[in-house]
Amino acid sequence: MLFKVEMTVKIPHDMPEEIAADIKAREKAYAQKLQAQGQWLHLWRVAGSYANVSIFDVQSNEELQEIISQLPLFPYMEISVAPLCRHPSSIHEDDR
Amino acid sequence: MLFKVEMTVKIPHDMPEEIAADIKAREKAYAQKLQAQGQWLHLWRVAGSYANVSIFDVQSNEELQEIISQLPLFPYMEISVAPLCRHPSSIHEDDR
Amino acid sequence: MLFKVEMTVKIPHDMPEEIAADIKAREKAYAQKLQAQGQWLHLWRVAGSYANVSIFDVQSNEELQEIISQLPLFPYMEISVAPLCRHPSSIHEDDR
Amino acid sequence: MLFKVEMTVKIPHDMPEEIAADIKAREKAYAQKLQAQGQWLHLWRVAGSYANVSIFDVQSNEELQEIISQLPLFPYMEISVAPLCRHPSSIHEDDR
Amino acid sequence: MLFKVEMTVKIPHDMPEEIAADIKAREKAYAQKLQAQGQWLHLWRVAGSYANVSIFDVQSNEELQEIISQLPLFPYMEISVAPLCRHPSSIHEDDR
Amino acid sequence: MLFKVEMTVKIPHDMPEEIAADIKAREKAYAQKLQAQGQWLHLWRVAGSYANVSIFDVQSNEELQEIISQLPLFPYMEISVAPLCRHPSSIHEDDR
Amino acid sequence: MLFKVEMTVKIPHDMPEEIAADIKAREKAYAQKLQAQGQWLHLWRVAGSYANVSIFDVQSNEELQEIISQLPLFPYMEISVAPLCRHPSSIHEDDR
Amino acid sequence: MLFKVEMTVKIPHDMPEEIAADIKAREKAYAQKLQAQGQWLHLWRVAGSYANVSIFDVQSNEELQEIISQLPLFPYMEISVAPLCRHPSSIHEDDR
Amino acid sequence: MLFKVEMTVKIPHDMPEEIAADIKAREKAYAQKLQAQGQWLHLWRVAGSYANVSIFDVQSNEELQEIISQLPLFPYMEISVAPLCRHPSSIHEDDR
Amino acid sequence: MLFKVEMTVKIPHDMPEEIAADIKAREKAYAQKLQAQGQWLHLWRVAGSYANVSIFDVQSNEELQEIISQLPLFPYMEISVAPLCRHPSSIHEDDR
Repeated sequence: MLFKVEMTVKIPHDMPEEIAADIKAREKAYAQKLQAQGQWLHLWRVAGSYANVSIFDVQSNEELQEIISQLPLFPYMEISVAPLCRHPSSIHEDDR
Repeated sequence: MLFKVEMTVKIPHDMPEEIAADIKAREKAYAQKLQAQGQWLHLWRVAGSYANVSIFDVQSNEELQEIISQLPLFPYMEISVAPLCRHPSSIHEDDR
Repeated sequence: MLFKVEMTVKIPHDMPEEIAADIKAREKAYAQKLQAQGQWLHLWRVAGSYANVSIFDVQSNEELQEIISQLPLFPYMEISVAPLCRHPSSIHEDDR
Repeated sequence: MLFKVEMTVKIPHDMPEEIAADIKAREKAYAQKLQAQGQWLHLWRVAGSYANVSIFDVQSNEELQEIISQLPLFPYMEISVAPLCRHPSSIHEDDR
Repeated sequence: MLFKVEMTVKIPHDMPEEIAADIKAREKAYAQKLQAQGQWLHLWRVAGSYANVSIFDVQSNEELQEIISQLPLFPYMEISVAPLCRHPSSIHEDDR
Repeated sequence: MLFKVEMTVKIPHDMPEEIAADIKAREKAYAQKLQAQGQWLHLWRVAGSYANVSIFDVQSNEELQEIISQLPLFPYMEISVAPLCRHPSSIHEDDR
Repeated sequence: MLFKVEMTVKIPHDMPEEIAADIKAREKAYAQKLQAQGQWLHLWRVAGSYANVSIFDVQSNEELQEIISQLPLFPYMEISVAPLCRHPSSIHEDDR
Repeated sequence: MLFKVEMTVKIPHDMPEEIAADIKAREKAYAQKLQAQGQWLHLWRVAGSYANVSIFDVQSNEELQEIISQLPLFPYMEISVAPLCRHPSSIHEDDR
Repeated sequence: MLFKVEMTVKIPHDMPEEIAADIKAREKAYAQKLQAQGQWLHLWRVAGSYANVSIFDVQSNEELQEIISQLPLFPYMEISVAPLCRHPSSIHEDDR
Repeated sequence: MLFKVEMTVKIPHDMPEEIAADIKAREKAYAQKLQAQGQWLHLWRVAGSYANVSIFDVQSNEELQEIISQLPLFPYMEISVAPLCRHPSSIHEDDR
């Protein structure tokens, strides 16, 4: 089951750089683990911004919540979620 | 070069049904041709709406404009466009 | 799997009354069938408006889309969807 | 009398963790007491967010205000309220 | 129990004048009956607009819905509702 | 001459409690003095929020500005103002 | 007593031209009469739009409502009103 | 050439009072100098707010930018600008 | 003196095609004349939309208003205007 | 390939002046290098604001992202991006 998730990062200006660097490193590792596991299907940067467009592939709303709420950057992001499903005009097998 | 495009269909209530049906049929054929050609990379329905989330793969802004402006439903849609690029944390080859 | 769905009805002013009445009658029958089947878990009127707040219980995003897109009033409503899941502080078994 | 209440938590980034933990613990206890008493009828997490959708069952606007203003997280939440009532198409006894 | 209700009238430009006049006459009679009965506590015009600010005094959300949904202008108004209650600093007996 | 004024309180999270308490005490005293003098005609809490709906009765825009700008909570509130006047359908003498 | 009023004209596309021309002619005559009487103190076009910024000088909210609601274009305009008063830094006698 | 400029002051809550007082004093002196020179044609307080509506009379966009960017409160204000010109219905010589 | 102007075209769905075609042809001729005269400095299509971003070079707000209000598509466009001036970091002579 | 980029600068009030001055100096040098290289085609100040309108000329979305994300002021700006392409009515060679 697919969800489009858009995340915009807003790190507080007064966060010490080494803390920010640590959070970002853990975010990257976590994002890559989820991609390797198949739950984070697509991850794109929105050009000209500190934001991404992502497609998640999960079994349930609950799994989506568990994944997103554990993002190291979760407290510092504005996040919007849209549930997706197969479009009647799609010819791509993986556009579920 | 990828773009996220979101389209929400707003067909006027007074459009005769056979005209609407014709436009939708042409829209579907056109969308499937563009998918077969590789320019319309992903096409998902947003659950609970008459809207889609799409990923286009084009050579230029101009090609994107040509494709979208020729959609049979173009005059009846609200459309938003976001340019995408590779995310530094992506492990997927096709998340350009 | 639960979704909160909010629907605001905007029937065009020039729709003949008997057509509107027919659509509303079919909407009511359809809504009651879905409630009886367990997919439309809650249905409330928002006081002072022609709008409702609903909770749907479905197996997938796709099922939600099928149900909502077949609402007789679907072309005449503004609809917003939010995926829900269990809250860690809930004590109610049915707040999944 | 039912009200839909949506709450989004925005804890300041510079709040010490033990203070935040204490507030959240008291919030949970308070929320569970109100659920046990029947005033907090439903409590769902919105998937992908630090937010909830709730249904309250109270005798009056005043009781709603007393309950919500005493939430330990009250100063740190954006809250919206919609009064609900029975929908003419509902078949559920408890959708008052 | 008090509610603040704001109504903005948007009569379609193509409504025949005698129909509009009839609706407005019935709206006025209905509004004055509700004021006489005590349910429509205050009714003010917002200066420079075709809008009003009103205070309703009802027993329940349901009663509010019944009153507002029967306004002859109901299909032609944008309406917002806010539940009110006693303010701890009020000295007026009737500011419940 | 009446004005509807809506005020939402946003006290900074890092304001010391005793300073906040002092401001609130002075706000209450000031609000009650203005009510006793007849300038603050109505004062309601919006249920579920730290906000109020008020009706002011003043001689001029200037008097309104003087009253509101001297509110002890003035620097910490979002305030909106709407000028009111008699509604042609009102039957209440005091709905000027 | 001064008010800033902003008006944006939205004439329906299907209004016959001679009717529109008549309304605009009456609007102009009315606006010039009110300027001659001193109630419409300033009237500017917003460059690049079919909109104006105006300053009205009236005795009361009620007078403002009477003037604006009688504008021939009133049913076809979006109108916003802000009450003005003397600014403590103004040196102009007529900036009341 | 006239411009309508609206400014809303948002002084940070943690700015020391003597610094704020100094900025405001310099703002007032600067505003009065510009009024005396004829560039700041009108300056009104919006009743019930810490905001103003102003009319500037300048030779060019560049002159407007120079004047506004040098306002001592410039870093602490939300500012909107609308270019004005003569309205065809104006009878006032100075409504250019 | 430069202005950025953004125009989004919203032609009514029920406008006969030959009338629309005539308006568009006149719009094109007018736009090209203004470009040839140097007043319409830049004209770009926004990719994926029926909208443009334009830079106008005029002597005054009044000239801008005259040019824009005479656009054949003027009644069918949403238009926003921003006054521009030289940026202190620009190295381009023509970025005035 | 052209993009319109709008940037609004929001430097935190508590940033030390010498740090802000250093960031701005590096921003200016970087902006001028990109202009000299031809990637930053136009750069205008929006009159009355701390904002700019820019036109970038790049080979791809990726190049745009690289350029913008390296702006020294990037963490302190609100940025919006619109892809541009040739307008069918343009007569300017460089309005690609």
